[in-house]
Amino acid sequence: MSLASPSDTLFCTVDVVLLTLRDQTLHVLLHRRDREPHADAWALPGGFIHTAEDASTWDAAARVLADKTGITSPYLAQLATWSGPGRDPRGWSVSVVYYALVPAHIVPTEHDRLHLCAVAHLPELPFDHAHIVAEAVQRVRTKSVYSSLPVYLCGETFTLPELQAVYEAVLGEPINKVSFRRKVEELAMLEPVPGERQAGGAHRPAQLWRLRPEVRAAWALSLSERGLNSRG
Amino acid sequence: MSLASPSDTLFCTVDVVLLTLRDQTLHVLLHRRDREPHADAWALPGGFIHTAEDASTWDAAARVLADKTGITSPYLAQLATWSGPGRDPRGWSVSVVYYALVPAHIVPTEHDRLHLCAVAHLPELPFDHAHIVAEAVQRVRTKSVYSSLPVYLCGETFTLPELQAVYEAVLGEPINKVSFRRKVEELAMLEPVPGERQAGGAHRPAQLWRLRPEVRAAWALSLSERGLNSRG
Repeated sequence: MSLASPSDTLFCTVDVVLLTLRDQTLHVLLHRRDREPHADAWALPGGFIHTAEDASTWDAAARVLADKTGITSPYLAQLATWSGPGRDPRGWSVSVVYYALVPAHIVPTEHDRLHLCAVAHLPELPFDHAHIVAEAVQRVRTKSVYSSLPVYLCGETFTLPELQAVYEAVLGEPINKVSFRRKVEELAMLEPVPGERQAGGAHRPAQLWRLRPEVRAAWALSLSERGLNSRG
Repeated sequence: MSLASPSDTLFCTVDVVLLTLRDQTLHVLLHRRDREPHADAWALPGGFIHTAEDASTWDAAARVLADKTGITSPYLAQLATWSGPGRDPRGWSVSVVYYALVPAHIVPTEHDRLHLCAVAHLPELPFDHAHIVAEAVQRVRTKSVYSSLPVYLCGETFTLPELQAVYEAVLGEPINKVSFRRKVEELAMLEPVPGERQAGGAHRPAQLWRLRPEVRAAWALSLSERGLNSRG
């Protein structure tokens, strides 16, 4: 069936802003482009939608991220869609952008086509990728004020001082310890890991915590977008 | 230039969820489709991107809304993008969806292809449009808790009791008058209209208020997306 529409002349991609914490600072994972335009430049990992295998742009983003970085992110959410005739020299383009949050230890450290870069010290990025990274950082900061989102930057288990340091790194400012503990209680997002305590040198071993499974499940449901695409 | 990519086989549209208040209830504007698939069904106003004239999907959404409904909305923001092989019988599709908020008086009341429908009593909608409307309503409710967004459902000027009724209609629950006044002050979003008071029968005439111009300008800047597309 021919659509005979002007939209035939545009193309559609996905891009992924993968954020993590290194040295208590937000970093974004850049990928060295392997083709024109901007071949060999550092850019967000991205690619075309493969209509034969992807069930949604979410699927495409997860596939592109795995293919180009080897990472499967437990948190992968839609950021926004960028578009226009000028952002890519190949023509009128639409990019559906996703953002991911992962603990630093799952990011490959030595890799000739991957580079973890502090968001405050980005190299010049092609397309509108610098703007997209800034929007992703802003989104994560805004959401972190009222949600458990930063937990995805931690490992599976963590102490409360570790989690507080993660929130402080994301928000870019110190947090009062009492307010932080109250907020964590209000969000009802954590549970203690039974019998697990972190050895603490001279200190009493600290209790380890983890995200409650139902909180993780609720995030996963809201993130997958699979339910959005089931109606014919 | 040939892209020789799998994305050639998909198509991209925009859809608009236009919300307004009628009878103190959120309503969505539906448009009777004038072509297959689902010809003559009520659906969200939408259409293809016209790459020759649209500078972004935001431009396409504003154009489609004006063409199909005659409405230019001061508030038109990106909601999210839906995609997949099953949502449209014509093939693998991407729809970048926008939502608009307008005062009821600018919506045409008599029109054989437009229908203002309470969001709680929607007819069966084609594609995934029922789900998209639900997401838009949820977004507006969430944003209304901490912003001046519902002001766009009012006319240019309004009394504080009128604005409170609008917030209550959007949030679907009564609001304490003192808390509401405090919130309005905190948001610092309104200014009194000099010398303007509403005649109030037996009561003292009520002060009329309007959105402060700089708040409106800040919204407009965050909404236009024009700045997002300027980098080559």
